[in-house]
Amino acid sequence: MTEFTFPYQVTYGDTDAAGVVYYARYLEIMERARWAWLEQHGVAVAELHRTGRLFVVAEAHLHYRRPAPLGARLTVGVAVERVGRASITLRQPVRGADDTLFVEATLRLGCVDPAGKVSPLPPEVARALAR
Amino acid sequence: MTEFTFPYQVTYGDTDAAGVVYYARYLEIMERARWAWLEQHGVAVAELHRTGRLFVVAEAHLHYRRPAPLGARLTVGVAVERVGRASITLRQPVRGADDTLFVEATLRLGCVDPAGKVSPLPPEVARALAR
Amino acid sequence: MTEFTFPYQVTYGDTDAAGVVYYARYLEIMERARWAWLEQHGVAVAELHRTGRLFVVAEAHLHYRRPAPLGARLTVGVAVERVGRASITLRQPVRGADDTLFVEATLRLGCVDPAGKVSPLPPEVARALAR
Amino acid sequence: MTEFTFPYQVTYGDTDAAGVVYYARYLEIMERARWAWLEQHGVAVAELHRTGRLFVVAEAHLHYRRPAPLGARLTVGVAVERVGRASITLRQPVRGADDTLFVEATLRLGCVDPAGKVSPLPPEVARALAR
Repeated sequence: MTEFTFPYQVTYGDTDAAGVVYYARYLEIMERARWAWLEQHGVAVAELHRTGRLFVVAEAHLHYRRPAPLGARLTVGVAVERVGRASITLRQPVRGADDTLFVEATLRLGCVDPAGKVSPLPPEVARALAR
Repeated sequence: MTEFTFPYQVTYGDTDAAGVVYYARYLEIMERARWAWLEQHGVAVAELHRTGRLFVVAEAHLHYRRPAPLGARLTVGVAVERVGRASITLRQPVRGADDTLFVEATLRLGCVDPAGKVSPLPPEVARALAR
Repeated sequence: MTEFTFPYQVTYGDTDAAGVVYYARYLEIMERARWAWLEQHGVAVAELHRTGRLFVVAEAHLHYRRPAPLGARLTVGVAVERVGRASITLRQPVRGADDTLFVEATLRLGCVDPAGKVSPLPPEVARALAR
Repeated sequence: MTEFTFPYQVTYGDTDAAGVVYYARYLEIMERARWAWLEQHGVAVAELHRTGRLFVVAEAHLHYRRPAPLGARLTVGVAVERVGRASITLRQPVRGADDTLFVEATLRLGCVDPAGKVSPLPPEVARALAR
């Protein structure tokens, strides 16, 4: 399985007084990586949003392995672990330039319809991700 | 004019690698102070939101006077400078426990209707703020 | 075991375009709850920071059960699941006013010394939390 | 004067329940643009940080012209308005793909030495920016 990767540089806004990336911030960076990854699969998240359907994170497991300093050039991976009828499980490791592992993450995303109910993945998304 | 004040303690999530409050973060803290201030005037922002009307910041002038460190107990002021037909100008100074001035801020807020057009302040809001 | 609880109201800055609390934001809110909880145990996080010791989150498991809307009055719990020599495991459920469960979270925190090495919990912290 | 521009796509983490970019968030995006701009001038902000010198925003004037929606592809400009001995004034307009103006911003940045005192711009920075 080839992993999609997304580059991201750590600036002051990502860090806290400990001098390293703030722990909540990784989830924001991972979201940016997922957008780029979905786009590469032909899925425009903002258009999906306008039809009222959206991906929501149902579960997140994060292992913080090593702190990432100011200025670090991160590489955020996106790899599909499992595609279900109404959910996708992704692994999103965050690494440094020299392949240092900063964070390991597994996220389960569900799909929600305009009424807010869990619904199957949009067929075009399921097709795209199955490729 | 009596100034409304809102207490806020600086935690890691508010700071950056310089060890002090990140400059964007003050705008978030000021929003929290405005909610508390509007609530005290009987205006529930979330209910206003459900009717489609919302306050939007049209202009913000910020003077960062002194960096606020981790753990600082801030006091965020809210003082009306001017109430217009469709906008309010507020001063929102951020001070420390010993009255140190960290940030001076002036914000102009407008009101927007469900169609996204600038609209007069809701009468109940104008009445409340005029008191 | 009595659970410590921390109140928090959802404002615009906590939400995203889906109209509910953004998934990363809960980790920031949980940090605020932990500060209040530690303080109640006589542990001042900012002072600990000045001695170079800090708590770092080593692991976080989040289950997003239900979206929390704008204006929601959250109650963030802090309950000790386990105190080890160099780490603490906490549960931090986020509930609504009517006890709706929004998020279930388990976090493992470690303690780091001035050199950045994992170190035992400061004795005053261990003592405080053991009470 | 040629303006430096930095591309940025709006994802959920940038927005709030009004469906558009949250007002504080623009300051974070502008910081990212300044890093890219300084880097293009041969100034590595993270290295500067390690020598204890840092740029701090002393003043920010923001005019929010139009809300930027989810998915918008922003272009953040960086243009020098004035270089002083110890401060730089920048304009940082945020535009959409079709040149819509979302935010106009003017920021004055100062330079701070390891003791936290305002200090002259590092010579290499002054030289780079004067080019």
